[in-house]
Amino acid sequence: MTNTIDHTQGIDKKADTDAARIDSELDASARLPKRSTGSGVVVARTDVEWLGRYLLGSWAEVRLAARELTARPEMQRIEGQSLDEHRERVFGQLKLLVEDGQVHRAFPKSVGGEDDHGGNIAGFEELVTADPSLQIKSGVQWGLFGAAVLHLGTEYHHRTFLPGIMSLEVPGAFAMTETGHGSDVAAIGTTATFDEATGEFVLDTPFRGAWKDYLGNAAKHGIAAVVFAQLVTKNVNHGVHAFYVPIRDAATGEFLPGIGGEDDGLKGGLNGIDNGRLHFDGVRIPRSNLLNRYGDVSADGEYSSSIASPGRRFFTMLGTLVQGRVSLDGASVAAAKIALTVAVTYGNQRRQFTAGSDTDEEVLLDYQLHQKRLMPRLATTYAASFAHEKLLTKFDEVFSGVADTDEGRQDLETLAAALKPLSTWHALDTLQEAREACGGAGFLAENRLVGLRADLDVYATFEGDNHVLLQLVAKRLLSDYSRRFAKADFGVLARYVVEQAAGRTVNGSGLRSFAQTVADLGSTARSVGQLRDSAAQRQLLTDRVETMVGEVAGKLRPAVKLSKKDAADLFNLHQSEIIEAARAHAELLQWEAFTEAIEGVDGTAPEGLDDGTRVVLTWLRDLFGLGLIEKHLAWYLINGRLSPSRARAVGLYTERLSARLRPHAQDLVSAFGYGPEHVRASISSGAEKARQSEAREYYRAARAAGTLPVEEKKLGTTK
Amino acid sequence: MTNTIDHTQGIDKKADTDAARIDSELDASARLPKRSTGSGVVVARTDVEWLGRYLLGSWAEVRLAARELTARPEMQRIEGQSLDEHRERVFGQLKLLVEDGQVHRAFPKSVGGEDDHGGNIAGFEELVTADPSLQIKSGVQWGLFGAAVLHLGTEYHHRTFLPGIMSLEVPGAFAMTETGHGSDVAAIGTTATFDEATGEFVLDTPFRGAWKDYLGNAAKHGIAAVVFAQLVTKNVNHGVHAFYVPIRDAATGEFLPGIGGEDDGLKGGLNGIDNGRLHFDGVRIPRSNLLNRYGDVSADGEYSSSIASPGRRFFTMLGTLVQGRVSLDGASVAAAKIALTVAVTYGNQRRQFTAGSDTDEEVLLDYQLHQKRLMPRLATTYAASFAHEKLLTKFDEVFSGVADTDEGRQDLETLAAALKPLSTWHALDTLQEAREACGGAGFLAENRLVGLRADLDVYATFEGDNHVLLQLVAKRLLSDYSRRFAKADFGVLARYVVEQAAGRTVNGSGLRSFAQTVADLGSTARSVGQLRDSAAQRQLLTDRVETMVGEVAGKLRPAVKLSKKDAADLFNLHQSEIIEAARAHAELLQWEAFTEAIEGVDGTAPEGLDDGTRVVLTWLRDLFGLGLIEKHLAWYLINGRLSPSRARAVGLYTERLSARLRPHAQDLVSAFGYGPEHVRASISSGAEKARQSEAREYYRAARAAGTLPVEEKKLGTTK
Repeated sequence: MTNTIDHTQGIDKKADTDAARIDSELDASARLPKRSTGSGVVVARTDVEWLGRYLLGSWAEVRLAARELTARPEMQRIEGQSLDEHRERVFGQLKLLVEDGQVHRAFPKSVGGEDDHGGNIAGFEELVTADPSLQIKSGVQWGLFGAAVLHLGTEYHHRTFLPGIMSLEVPGAFAMTETGHGSDVAAIGTTATFDEATGEFVLDTPFRGAWKDYLGNAAKHGIAAVVFAQLVTKNVNHGVHAFYVPIRDAATGEFLPGIGGEDDGLKGGLNGIDNGRLHFDGVRIPRSNLLNRYGDVSADGEYSSSIASPGRRFFTMLGTLVQGRVSLDGASVAAAKIALTVAVTYGNQRRQFTAGSDTDEEVLLDYQLHQKRLMPRLATTYAASFAHEKLLTKFDEVFSGVADTDEGRQDLETLAAALKPLSTWHALDTLQEAREACGGAGFLAENRLVGLRADLDVYATFEGDNHVLLQLVAKRLLSDYSRRFAKADFGVLARYVVEQAAGRTVNGSGLRSFAQTVADLGSTARSVGQLRDSAAQRQLLTDRVETMVGEVAGKLRPAVKLSKKDAADLFNLHQSEIIEAARAHAELLQWEAFTEAIEGVDGTAPEGLDDGTRVVLTWLRDLFGLGLIEKHLAWYLINGRLSPSRARAVGLYTERLSARLRPHAQDLVSAFGYGPEHVRASISSGAEKARQSEAREYYRAARAAGTLPVEEKKLGTTK
Repeated sequence: MTNTIDHTQGIDKKADTDAARIDSELDASARLPKRSTGSGVVVARTDVEWLGRYLLGSWAEVRLAARELTARPEMQRIEGQSLDEHRERVFGQLKLLVEDGQVHRAFPKSVGGEDDHGGNIAGFEELVTADPSLQIKSGVQWGLFGAAVLHLGTEYHHRTFLPGIMSLEVPGAFAMTETGHGSDVAAIGTTATFDEATGEFVLDTPFRGAWKDYLGNAAKHGIAAVVFAQLVTKNVNHGVHAFYVPIRDAATGEFLPGIGGEDDGLKGGLNGIDNGRLHFDGVRIPRSNLLNRYGDVSADGEYSSSIASPGRRFFTMLGTLVQGRVSLDGASVAAAKIALTVAVTYGNQRRQFTAGSDTDEEVLLDYQLHQKRLMPRLATTYAASFAHEKLLTKFDEVFSGVADTDEGRQDLETLAAALKPLSTWHALDTLQEAREACGGAGFLAENRLVGLRADLDVYATFEGDNHVLLQLVAKRLLSDYSRRFAKADFGVLARYVVEQAAGRTVNGSGLRSFAQTVADLGSTARSVGQLRDSAAQRQLLTDRVETMVGEVAGKLRPAVKLSKKDAADLFNLHQSEIIEAARAHAELLQWEAFTEAIEGVDGTAPEGLDDGTRVVLTWLRDLFGLGLIEKHLAWYLINGRLSPSRARAVGLYTERLSARLRPHAQDLVSAFGYGPEHVRASISSGAEKARQSEAREYYRAARAAGTLPVEEKKLGTTK
């Protein structure tokens, strides 16, 4: 149906020469000779089946199996349940996951698992379409509580604790965050002091701000917890370590002696999870309950660690928990896909206002503004989806041991810290735009957009506040920068660009490396059409990241000579710039992932990508890339990277690309592969189309029968 | 406490000359000689009491009385109630409003009211802080259902129906929207056909899409409704009219014969309101139930109207209902004030990460990024607050009859259509940013940000979808433009600017008028400092609106020669530009309102504004104005209105202004005048400050006693 729409939409080409010129350029690019046969023209079309399979990525079978599971009503959210009902339902769903054998994938073969790290995350993140509470509560039990025992513990802990965790016999909390400390974990107040006399650790909460807080499973279901605390032995604080601590009597559900807590109560979303608070007063646990992979205490109280630097040890321990961020990235992409499936489907059915006709109203998606609201978000969703696949692959490489080096882990953490903020914010933005684009219907719970948005809200601040994560990325960029240019003069560095040859995109780390090659930036976009060239987009996006990093590095250079306080103030004076550079870097990573998905590494297109689909995906990638440039247009103008006339062309391009992609919108959301059983929004069920057809048929029949009253305005004036 | 902070924050002035230059300019402006005495220097400070009173505006006493009411626990929302409980609670609160004599203000003295239109809205919009459901359900009963009877009916209807409506004896629905038609009311499908034989109107719902939908009071409490339907008599459709229709048996609560309906069920928010659907099958009502102020049918079926044009008649009828938009504008501003009160208070107490000290962590609001997230939103909230006061005044003038002309009504509608989109989106944006700025604590229902956001979500699309409203504004701008320049050549119009002398701001209509005077735009901002001059900001903002309107008018000029279909396509091709011009216009109106609030009309400052407060408010206005210019910086650069170096200075300015205003943030939110009984967020209650103090005292005492363990990193390496 959508393919019959004329995307030139009656443009008066004389009046709109710019738009017409852009359209003819787009026509020309769509009509390139077929690469393979060398004859004929390419018609833009979408091979939905191929694209759908391609989007499923490396763990396609796991995802498909997870989608069969999330299609089952008993796994799905019931809107409007009370807090208690919702909590019990989700807890019950966790048991179904265990029965279904879904939870063992990431665990070691020695305890009955599969050692499949990428597949495990791929499967779990799909749970978000059933109910985000289910995804997150599973994440708490197996991805945080279980993973901490797995990654921070050693063989004894695996053998002793993992079976109960895997079977859900022991539901547990991941007690890291405190009321007084969210993202700054190093500063938590809880202490675990070794008592040589008894060979025990004694856990204490010294003040109210050190209560553990926002912990899933803590308010009700948890009977144990992995508690993060400052490890003190022989009056030395060795920093934050993790301890396995029983917290409730499994039979009665009562707190064990010395342990207390509170229910966090109702939240803005995710109410299927029983978040709560915990505090400890002289709680004693055996020495062996220290999860001692990275730091241990001997029976006589001597501390030892394989990592000498307390700072690096801390970050190594925290780094094992990166999977939370990876899975939030993937779940956010899935939620954005659901939102766009709803909004695009409804926008293709819903009619409102007559424009060019006396009788037929326009379908919403034919309005330019509606396209402008949805199409760029569709492009970003594709970019985020391809970027997530790269992140998940990197994660699997590190955790499977294929690429488990210090540098590999740091690269993984940086990549996750870069992508998670963008995808979580993108999901919220897309859910909200989809909700508004569906009008009042979008506000009804039955259409799911409001519920998903409410649940995903907190994704922006948990598992690392988005701004804090971007600041981590920036620090990595700055340290890479200073390592490379440690001895160079700043004047030399002021203009430097990409070292990679075109096509050699992201290096192994997911981080672009820096180089001195200076390109003539003025020539990147000789004609407006060249902006659509991959190399031109790459250069514009890369140049911005590198220039921003270089500039801020230069401004921070005096810090080495300053007092600690003044250096901190100097950093703070440039904090916004620093975070903006990290965001630009993350956007570039998404763009590179999208480009690689179409062009392949070294220009080898993916198998089975036909020319028509390639044209559509390239338009979509261009919309994403030029959309980024448009978003930061003032920067490109201020810094002389684009002339005013070329800058103006960017906005026209994104507008025309949105119109050009409009007939493909339904195909592009179909390729996400979510059926009605996953989307579950009555407005995108076809009901709207049926109502529209009924209304149009009513008027058609009444006109034909002559029973439709004459309109007063067609009669002339009335007294 | 906040006043002790040094806002230069240790800037290395040599390293950051730009920031230092801007700071010294800001210092200079703050140290202007006092206007009145001519001696001494002005210290920036906020007279919270004066400013608080000033913000209360013309209906200060009504607002204060309403705030006493909203401070009562029985008027307030209980988080976590079920749908049914919440609906019953809010219905009960409506009865309390009646008992309290709150609902009579807008109604005629003849039926016991006070004919106080502005005061009525001022009081009602304050209800949002108690529970947005209470505000909206009151709005449905008295602002829509009751107001329709009042404004569309005549003396018979007032006498017969208003007493029951005012006393809540007759709860009612405002049945305008249909499932198939939201913002396009003219196209609704419900018909009211006059039957000469019986002297009755017969109401029918011809198909499913014509069911009335999203109607407050329809699912449960409503026993009558004002139903909008196509009035048909003698086989002529006279367009949409309003009818008073009993829908339920008051005793049994059952639908009357021929009427059916459904519950809309759970929504994303506002669940204290029982939204539902209604449909009609041959429902007969007496002829006298037509609300016949603007159109009537005689006993023998002759239609008559005082307004000849069906189009103008329709818009006149709808125009009487503008108060919904006015009150959403005001309520949104109030919600943004609550959000900022929470986030600024928490940001001034919460500490996270040590920056320049070994022991003390920074207060969140000392971080540059945190300032950048909150201070511009504080500035926009002030702008929106002052703009709302102008709108409310205009509303009162029209409805009280002081300025009740056709033009006055059109101006009011345009002003409401311009401001409501900006303020509703601003409230959502501010609530979300405040939620994220408070981290996980912001996500707890007890801190209210998530609940308010969920409730206000739908404000963006009800009482007129925001984009549709902006398009209405744009059409008004375009028609004003073409009227003024009907005979002029387009070449002459290509460059035209403000006709108003500086200080003569918005004309009576709230719309800037257009003029041919050409200013040398290149000279507007000779030095970066001049950007802070009111006249320079005004010129930059006005020029953008006028240039955009002029450009789009030129592009649409060929439409008159095109077929209806092609003209619609041409309009659609420029829809985004059109709406962007309207948005720019609305932003300018907010800026003008803010400026007038400080400088007064004709440069006469408001009584009692001292110089210190004037400096703070001027910084805040500058942050708003320069923030708008920064947001649209690419436009200014592309169109040659700002040079690249001046454009760069804009961003630096807003950053330094945010830092400069930071010590005044607490005062600026205190002036909103909402006490703990209105804010009701435990994180801004002082509990956080107490926790922080307790933690700091614990460490201080332990250090003093020598009981704090030594940190490993201070000992050197461990094995």
